[in-house]
This record gives sequence, C-alpha cells and structure tokens, in this order.
Amino acid sequence: MLDDQPIFEIAEFASFELFSPCADETVWFFKDLLGMVETAREGDSVFLRGWEDHYKHSLKITQRDQPGMGYAGWRAMSPKALDRRVAAIKDSGLGIGWVEGECGMGPAYEFTTPDGSVQRLNWEVDYFEATPDQKSVLDNRPQRRPLTGVPLKHLDHLNMLAKDVTVNKQFASDVLGFRLSEHIILSNQVEAGAWLRLQTRSHDVAFTKDATGEGGRLHHVAFAYGTTQHLEDAAEVLIDHGLEIEAGIARHGISQAQFLYVFEPGGNRIELVGQLGYTVHDPSWQPVAWRQDTLDSAIIWQGSPLPPEFDTYGTPNRVPTNYRTPNRYVMAEAELILGRA
Amino acid sequence: MLDDQPIFEIAEFASFELFSPCADETVWFFKDLLGMVETAREGDSVFLRGWEDHYKHSLKITQRDQPGMGYAGWRAMSPKALDRRVAAIKDSGLGIGWVEGECGMGPAYEFTTPDGSVQRLNWEVDYFEATPDQKSVLDNRPQRRPLTGVPLKHLDHLNMLAKDVTVNKQFASDVLGFRLSEHIILSNQVEAGAWLRLQTRSHDVAFTKDATGEGGRLHHVAFAYGTTQHLEDAAEVLIDHGLEIEAGIARHGISQAQFLYVFEPGGNRIELVGQLGYTVHDPSWQPVAWRQDTLDSAIIWQGSPLPPEFDTYGTPNRVPTNYRTPNRYVMAEAELILGRA
Amino acid sequence: MLDDQPIFEIAEFASFELFSPCADETVWFFKDLLGMVETAREGDSVFLRGWEDHYKHSLKITQRDQPGMGYAGWRAMSPKALDRRVAAIKDSGLGIGWVEGECGMGPAYEFTTPDGSVQRLNWEVDYFEATPDQKSVLDNRPQRRPLTGVPLKHLDHLNMLAKDVTVNKQFASDVLGFRLSEHIILSNQVEAGAWLRLQTRSHDVAFTKDATGEGGRLHHVAFAYGTTQHLEDAAEVLIDHGLEIEAGIARHGISQAQFLYVFEPGGNRIELVGQLGYTVHDPSWQPVAWRQDTLDSAIIWQGSPLPPEFDTYGTPNRVPTNYRTPNRYVMAEAELILGRA
Amino acid sequence: MLDDQPIFEIAEFASFELFSPCADETVWFFKDLLGMVETAREGDSVFLRGWEDHYKHSLKITQRDQPGMGYAGWRAMSPKALDRRVAAIKDSGLGIGWVEGECGMGPAYEFTTPDGSVQRLNWEVDYFEATPDQKSVLDNRPQRRPLTGVPLKHLDHLNMLAKDVTVNKQFASDVLGFRLSEHIILSNQVEAGAWLRLQTRSHDVAFTKDATGEGGRLHHVAFAYGTTQHLEDAAEVLIDHGLEIEAGIARHGISQAQFLYVFEPGGNRIELVGQLGYTVHDPSWQPVAWRQDTLDSAIIWQGSPLPPEFDTYGTPNRVPTNYRTPNRYVMAEAELILGRA
Repeated sequence: MLDDQPIFEIAEFASFELFSPCADETVWFFKDLLGMVETAREGDSVFLRGWEDHYKHSLKITQRDQPGMGYAGWRAMSPKALDRRVAAIKDSGLGIGWVEGECGMGPAYEFTTPDGSVQRLNWEVDYFEATPDQKSVLDNRPQRRPLTGVPLKHLDHLNMLAKDVTVNKQFASDVLGFRLSEHIILSNQVEAGAWLRLQTRSHDVAFTKDATGEGGRLHHVAFAYGTTQHLEDAAEVLIDHGLEIEAGIARHGISQAQFLYVFEPGGNRIELVGQLGYTVHDPSWQPVAWRQDTLDSAIIWQGSPLPPEFDTYGTPNRVPTNYRTPNRYVMAEAELILGRA
Repeated sequence: MLDDQPIFEIAEFASFELFSPCADETVWFFKDLLGMVETAREGDSVFLRGWEDHYKHSLKITQRDQPGMGYAGWRAMSPKALDRRVAAIKDSGLGIGWVEGECGMGPAYEFTTPDGSVQRLNWEVDYFEATPDQKSVLDNRPQRRPLTGVPLKHLDHLNMLAKDVTVNKQFASDVLGFRLSEHIILSNQVEAGAWLRLQTRSHDVAFTKDATGEGGRLHHVAFAYGTTQHLEDAAEVLIDHGLEIEAGIARHGISQAQFLYVFEPGGNRIELVGQLGYTVHDPSWQPVAWRQDTLDSAIIWQGSPLPPEFDTYGTPNRVPTNYRTPNRYVMAEAELILGRA
Repeated sequence: MLDDQPIFEIAEFASFELFSPCADETVWFFKDLLGMVETAREGDSVFLRGWEDHYKHSLKITQRDQPGMGYAGWRAMSPKALDRRVAAIKDSGLGIGWVEGECGMGPAYEFTTPDGSVQRLNWEVDYFEATPDQKSVLDNRPQRRPLTGVPLKHLDHLNMLAKDVTVNKQFASDVLGFRLSEHIILSNQVEAGAWLRLQTRSHDVAFTKDATGEGGRLHHVAFAYGTTQHLEDAAEVLIDHGLEIEAGIARHGISQAQFLYVFEPGGNRIELVGQLGYTVHDPSWQPVAWRQDTLDSAIIWQGSPLPPEFDTYGTPNRVPTNYRTPNRYVMAEAELILGRA
Repeated sequence: MLDDQPIFEIAEFASFELFSPCADETVWFFKDLLGMVETAREGDSVFLRGWEDHYKHSLKITQRDQPGMGYAGWRAMSPKALDRRVAAIKDSGLGIGWVEGECGMGPAYEFTTPDGSVQRLNWEVDYFEATPDQKSVLDNRPQRRPLTGVPLKHLDHLNMLAKDVTVNKQFASDVLGFRLSEHIILSNQVEAGAWLRLQTRSHDVAFTKDATGEGGRLHHVAFAYGTTQHLEDAAEVLIDHGLEIEAGIARHGISQAQFLYVFEPGGNRIELVGQLGYTVHDPSWQPVAWRQDTLDSAIIWQGSPLPPEFDTYGTPNRVPTNYRTPNRYVMAEAELILGRA
C-alpha cells in the first residue's frame, strides 16, 4: 500500500447468497417481478444477475430452513491486493480459508466479520456473455433491457445488524480498507450505525445496531434502479402481487438515497434503491456524524418514520414480529404463476 | 344541444383498427415489447388494449396486404348524442351505415372523413373484466400493471394526412363537435395542420397536410405512457430489438407533448407519448395559430428537426421512401421470439 | 340542459381565497419557495397565479386573524350555463348574491355549500398577459417557466371537511353538476368522503368527514406539478426552509395521485400534487365505492399511514393539535428573506 | 504506486476556468438560469460552484477577448500522490511550474497536455461553508437547494479537441493515471476519440479529433443534474431565454449519458448532463472500442444525428460557423436582467 493513502484494495460488492425457506417463490420474486436474469441452477441454488451486472451472477438463492444470508462476496482491486487483504484477515484471526468459486466467481477466501457473518473475497471473475438475442446495440452494456417485470439494474449494498457497530466498523476499515462515510453517535456515545464505502458510492456496506443484541444477521441487501420512476413501478407491481412493503418510497438523510423496503417471500428484507444518493470523489471527505439532535433527518429525510421492527427484525429472525413472513397471499400468487396451484 | 355552447357530444377516441402485412410481428411489437394485453382473436384480427384502457379493446390488428388504418372508433357522450351526431353525419353526405360491434364495442355508425378515411361512432361498450390474477388492489384501475415489456397505458390520439386540412377540420368541428386547439397557417394562407379536441386533451385528432397530395392516409396513431422515463425505457427496448425510430424522444411545441415516432414491423408509423402536454379546461380557449415565423417552435420545441419523410410518408405508402419497411432485422427478431425462426 | 346527459355546466376550479394570520409569510411560501407569480396587490390581499394558470390570478391571499378559506371560485361553461346554475342555486336556498369580480375575474354569484363554506360562480375572465420578458417561444403557454423556487404549475382541486358528506355531495351533484368519481362508505353505511369531478380530472372537489363534527372548514387546497421530480424538489426546499410536511411524498389509492401535504406559515394545509392520477373520459364511468375492507388502499396506496390529525385538523382550527402552527422556525426564515429580521 | 495496480493518484476534476468575451452575460447564464452559487469576485473573474460542489468554487469565469478555457484543475488523491504526479509531469517535459491557488484551491502545479491546453494539479482545498440561511438539514450536503433558476449540481467532465487523440490519451493515461473507458477507432485506424476515467465515472476527460486540425481547444465542459426532469427544465428555460441549443436532449451510446449542448453567451459550448450514464467499479474493465460499423450508436444512441459543426467548432474558434455567437437575443435578455438595458 501507499504510505500516505488509505487502503484502496477492495473494489466492489460483487455477489450475495440469500437463504430462503421457499426458494422457488424467492426466485419468482427476483425474476418474474424484478426482472433479474437467471444464469445457472446448481443443486439447491439458483444464480441470478441484474441486467447491468457484469459478472455471471450477483445473487445466489439457496433453499434453507431459515431465511438469512449465506455469504457476501467482495472483489479485490488486483491479485496482489487480494493477497495483501487475505494476509491482513488471517492476522485478524477471522479467516476461514479458501473456497472454490461458483458460477463465474473464481476461488475466494472466506472469513467472518467480528459478529460472525460470512464474507468472501476474490479476484477472478467470468463476465456474463449475452446470447445473440440478449445483445444490446451498445457495446458498453452487458445485455439489453429484459422484457420481464420491472427490471432492477444491479446489486448495490449490504446492511448487517451488529451487536457492536464500532467493532465491526473498525474491522471493515482497518483490515479491509472500507472508508467511513457517515455514522450515528447516540447521546450515550454508543455508535448506532456506520456506513462505509469502497470507491465512490456513499456506502457499500452498513452496520446498524441490532436492538435484540444478537448481531451477525442480515438486515437487508439492496439492489438499485437509479431512477425514481422505476422504483414507483416496482412498488406498484409488488403491492399488486401481494408483497408486503415495510417502508417507503421515501428518502434517508444518510446517503440521501431513495428507498423501498420489501419482504421477499422467504422473509428476508430487500431494499430497492431509486435515486442513488450522493457519491464521494473527494479523497479527504470527513465522515459525517449524526447525533441525537439530527437523528430524525438522518433516518428519514423525506417521508414517514420507520416502523419499530426496523431495528429488531433481521434474518434469521428469532423475535416475535408483526410481519406476515412468509406471506401467504404472496405464496398463492407465486404458486399460480409457477403453475403449481 | 345547448344554444350557447359548442357541440359536446363525442367523448373519446376509443378504438382503432390497424392493417398490417405481417400481423404476427405487429402483435409482437405491441404485446411483447409494449406490454399491451390481448383480449381476443377472431378471423384475421387480434384485439389488444393498454393496461389502463377501460374497454375490451382499443386496438384491432388485422392482416392485410398493405399497412394503413381500418377505421377509427369514437364513443359518443350519450345514446341521444349518438343519434344527433348520426343525423348530422347523414346530412353531411358522408355516412355509410350501421355496422355490428366487435369485441366489446356495440353497434357503430360508419362514415368517412371528407378525405375518405373510415370512422365509426358508437355508444355501447363492454368493460374489460380483470381475471383474479390480473386484478389490482385499486378498484379504480381496470387491472394491475403487466409484467411484460414496457407497458403503455392507453390509446391517445389519431393523426391523418389530409389533402385539404381545412375541409377535414371543418367537418370534424361542424359535424362532429371537435374544437380547434391549434393550427398552422403558412404564409400563403394554406392551413398546413389542425389539432382538435373533444374534452380536455390538447388534441384527440389531427389533420396534417399530405405533401404527396393524396390524403386520407394514416400519418400515425398514438399511445400514451404519461411519463418521461417510460418513454426512455420504450426507446431502449425498441432500439435493441431492431425497430426503426424515426424521430424523438423530443417535444413538439404544438401540444407540448413528448414524443417518439417508430415504425412498427408492418410499416405503420406509431407515436408513443411520454409527458402528455397541456390540457384545456377553459371553455373560452382561443385556438393558437402558428405561422411561418413561429413554425419551427411549433413543430419541434425541444430537439432536432423532423426528417423530410415526416411530411410524405403515411400508410398505405405509394411514394419512394428511405425507410426500411417492413424491417428485416425486426422480422428476424420477431420470428425468433415467435418461435418460428 | 340535454335531456339525457348529466349537467355539464361548470368548467373548472378557477380561483381561491386563502386567509392567513401572517399573509406576508404565506406569500413568501407561495412566491419565493413555490414560484407563483404575483399579479396584483390590493388592500389586505395579494393575487398570485401558477405559471401555467391562464387567468390573472388563481390564488388570493388575504390577511385575517384566523387561517381558512375566503371563497372558492368556479367558472361556468358559458354565460347561459352560468344563468342556469345561478337559478338552480337560488332554488336550493343557498344563494347569497352577486359580487363584483376581482383581478381578472368578472362578476360572480356567491353562495354557500350546505355546510356554509363560501363559493363563487362566474363566467367573465381576463387572461394573464405576459410582459415581453415573461413570454415563452410557445404561443400555447401563458408565460415561460419562472426562475424562482420550484415553480408549481396550476391550481388543482379543493377539499372541504364536511359535517355530512352525503348532503354536500348531493348539492354539488344535483345543483352544480359535479359527477361522483369515488366515495368511501364505512361499514355503518356512513359516507366518509366523496370525490367529484367537472370535466376529466379524477376530482375537482372533495368532501371528507370532519371528525370534529364541525364542517365547512378547509381541509386543503391543492396545486399541481404533474411530475414526480418537481414534487421531490419541492419537498427538499420545504424541508430545508423549515416548513412542516404532514404526509408524503406518497400516493392515495383514491385518484392515484402523488401527494405531499404541508402547512403553509399561516397554518393552512396545502397539498402539492406530483403525478396527477387518472382522468375520466368515459361518459358512463361508474363511481368507485371504497368500503371498510379496501379502505387502507384507498387512503394510502403507496406509503405510510396518514397521521390522526388528518381527520380533525382543518382551518380555522378549534381543536388541540400537535402541529406547530404558525411555525416559528419558518417565520424566522421568512423574516430573513423578507428582510425584516 | 503499487506494482500491480494502475496509477490511481488523481481523484477528480475540481475546477475550471472559462474565458468569455462577455463575462457578465456568462455569469448570468450560469447563475440566474442554471442556479450556480457565486462565492467570490476578484479582478476580471467571478467564482461559482454548483450547489452540490464541495469546494469553494468549481467554475471561474474570466473576461477575455476570446472564449475558450483558461485551465482545468484536477485534485490529487493525497499530498504524496501530488508529488509523484508532478515528478512524472516534469519528466514528460510538459511541466510549467507552481502557481498560487485561488478561491479555495491551494497551490497547484501547472502543465499542458501535448496539444498545449493548460492544466493544474493540486491537493489543498478549502470547503464551501454554508451561511446559516444556506444550510441544509442534511449534514452530508454542502448547502440546501438554491431558489434560483434550474440549479445544476456539480462540475462533471471536460472534453478537449485534439490534433492527435492517441498522443493526448497516452499522456493522460501514462503520466496522469487516467484509465481508458471507451474509444473510437475509424476504419483507417485513426483514433477519433478517447474517454478516460479517474474513479468510477464513465469518463472525467475526453479527447475528440479536431476536424480543423488545430487541437488544444475546448470542445465542451460539462455540468451535471443527474435526472432527466431537471435537464428538461433547463432546456425549457434556456430556449425561452434565447440561448441556442446545439443538440439534445438525447443520449450518447458512449457513456450512455443524457446530454444537452448549449452555447453560453460567450460562445463556449456547455454540456448539461441529465442521467449520468454508467459507472465503472470493475477493476478489470476492458476498454470498449467503437468502430466504423458501430459508430452511429456510439455517437447517438437515442436521438437525431449531431450537427456537422460538432466536429469543428471549439473555443477559441477560428473557422466559419453557422452559430450565432455571441447571441444577440441572449444578450438583450441578459442585459434586461442585469439591469443595464
């Protein structure tokens, strides 16, 4: 690394494994409603990507008894950056070991966050190759816009519930090289949330305080549209197919992004992002600290307050909840479309 | 009619028959790419509607050797208004006679414009009934948003090429009760175009000067999105499926509407409307006259000039044209999707 | 009137008088933040219009001790339609008498709704005349887009709190010729709200049940943008100038319109409309009845539930409220800009 | 630098000096119409920034006899990165020397591109400090949205006409560390354009072939909105204030960005960007090569062909042109607003 620069060795959030107790319905949600493109099926898993995702997959859906995250996959900046980060992770004591890659992702080094959530880091990737009838006239696009559902564009970011936000933030920053964009400091000095970035997105990962004290669970994984209208379209379609929208369309002050939170049929909270919020090109950006008196604008800048479960519900979930998960009406809808009703 | 009010007896442009020399590909264009919903097939015809169209169909596509319009269907304000308009049409000498209705449109009186283009006027309609898996949570919507293509919302307006704009305008206004919103008066006092309305849309019908001198042909039939983003989405999809976009996305000064002109596979010019332009609620609205010195802003307010064929190409077309119609690449695309390649 | 048609004699909602206990700040809100154009000042009143409003004013702001509505002004379809409606109003016993017009509105007949809210009906209008530096290149526009604030386009609709919704709805429909688009029927058969239209807007007036039992008060007056982005822009500006947003950006099921409710500095609830919702061109449109089981989607189709005060707060307001009205921070902001701080 | 990574030492395009023969009118264009915020005046120069620009200025407008660019200012990733790049520039023989900073930009090293266009590289910056009445409720925003014009957000990228595209591209890439995103290779193997990036924007700088053979001139400097609607708003305002729009609103295939090209009153071509196009987070992104057969989609993906002057007109301009520059109508408009008419 450069002596005078921050670590700059992880490039992007590239893949994510989602566990679902009803994987077929979860695939229906992402594929039929949100227009993701299926690229492979293997064992209990289906591999999908948004139409602007460049690699062979960005989402792996796996059948499991409980919802939650399998792993989050990150791509290094270079082969040597991968080596250096793996060495640093090993030093931290949180390394697990190398695993074979799947569906376009090469060998990856597996490790956990301090809270125990599984992560992977790799370098080698295969690019998605459009078939002739998927090709765009634009050579800078992986494929043309799909004709199914309201097609989301790409994987965006990950939010994990943390037992101790500070410890996880510090690991991400010291060992992996994420840089802090914003955080929440409560009046008791507890850090209630931290948003960290790799390149110019306002954040690629966030840790928010788990009000149940558990930690290591999936709060949400986010996919991006980039425009308000597509998020409106998705909201219409989701509501009319019986999905439960938890919050939004509204805007967080933190990141300034326009959001919608919805529970996919397997019970995981998914964020869909409309307008993307700010980007950071400034190398001396000072992290923004939100405190008790500015907290309301931080959480919800435009829109109504978030529901209380937003702080406790994560997957797997072990606390009582008001949410209908999995959603029976949705199931009926999905069954109908999947031709099994 | 009221003694002091304009005739106010035709309510809306409700249905349209389009001839296509390759009806399957034309159906593919409207259904697979633009998300129209098929409601019936009968003989050589397929009946479709936009997802916000209330009646059983708004578009009938019929296989014919030449592209062009079959008829344009208008709905009266009431049964007695229908009677009064039919009487007035008979008086004008342009009546043909009553025809049976089709696919949700009841008996209609058929007649022609002075240029000979076929029109129908009727009262009785059947509403589209959504099946359980098409229903929206909103009882004020005919159905939920389709999951196919970039779904257009509704039939919008009709533009016919006229041998003599004034004669056709006068017929529409005196006999049918359309009201003039805008027109173009060239420096030689020739009326080169007239845009007329029924209720509050800036126009439901337009007559524009046929530079070939023929008249009575279809210049374009228009369908509406209502938002810029959906028009952008449609443009992307059309370009990437090999369709030929003639002009746009841009904006006319006349009507202020945001447009895209595209040739469907059968060779007819179709307009897709993004933002809809102004509406007229003012009962004493004075028609706007565009003249030589303001003509440029009238035709194109935002965007590049229209291509010269815009004034000569209509369907059926008997003049040489640069346009690839029918489009072979599109045909290949359609064949592929229709499973016949 | 035509024997077989509904009364069709009022054309549009054309002007509105708003009382404010701090008229300067109210003018600042509409003019500096929302880009309305001032056309006259007279006595205690300031006359404004949206940049797409055609007449000399659409909003009159008058200094009074209490917030509330002065009158709502409606424009007839023709001089004879005005005569006929005035006769019908006189017959109803709710007529008051003729008043002189103001700022571009000619003589008007004044009357009240059954709940006592003041209305005016007139025919004669003067059009706004743009000065040379306000003119647009488009002759179908009253003026070019202003360079101040987030300029709203036009007056849209009016919502009054009603002691008895049915009685007011019946008056509007039988005497004035409004047509019912949608209404809410609770399980106890009480009509809790009614939305009625003049021409093609989903509604020009609404009566909603006053939970305080008082009636005749202003719930809100609405102004339109027509696009989502402008509503987002307005939200940003309003929040950053200390105004209190009560609800939104979200969407009602009723009308499908995209809304934002904000309290102007004088304490009146103002609605800003983004996307406008559906229009009705169908002359046989059947009113949509929302009942207990579909009520949630009717009130909020997309977004979070409305706050409880939405059913009780109107102006003038005589019930305790959580709302800061008038808003001290806003006042400080306005004072600063008005140069009086 | 890392042995296995590209140079990654310049962070962003941070400031730009524009020469104008009528600086007052140019300031009116950027300030009154496009909502830029003035932060200082000094000698013949006015300093402005977009409301989301973080530093004290991003645009310096200087009165000169001829339009054109003064310099383009780039910010390094760190102090040591600055040192290393300055050393590399000196080695290249194109260094000029250190200059004092202005208006929030610290000391900068001045140099030229191979074509002789002046550039600056620096590290130290002062941030814009909002006054109390400019502050947003969001601490991650430099200020709240201005109430003037259609406020653009930030400086985006720079396009210079090149005598030899390849030579300039190679300098930017080898010496400064820009990475190639896309380029055009004509059938005669001439590189007709190259688009290069620093971080994740599709491009921060572009060199396009100067058809006049001169080179080193300003083709355009671009500012960003980020949304379609704001670009539409800007187009309306520019047209209605007499500015000449050269091309757009349309979309390039290259970068996929939505553009509008307009001549500011001083005669410089300014690009306004709506939707921003793609971003590159992939560290192994392979440059896209557009060739003769895909060139049309590269230049204009959606919209009409660019006018021929697009390849020859740059500032300062020495070739005959159809463009009215400076524009007399605009001047009259500006004079009116500046209060000098």
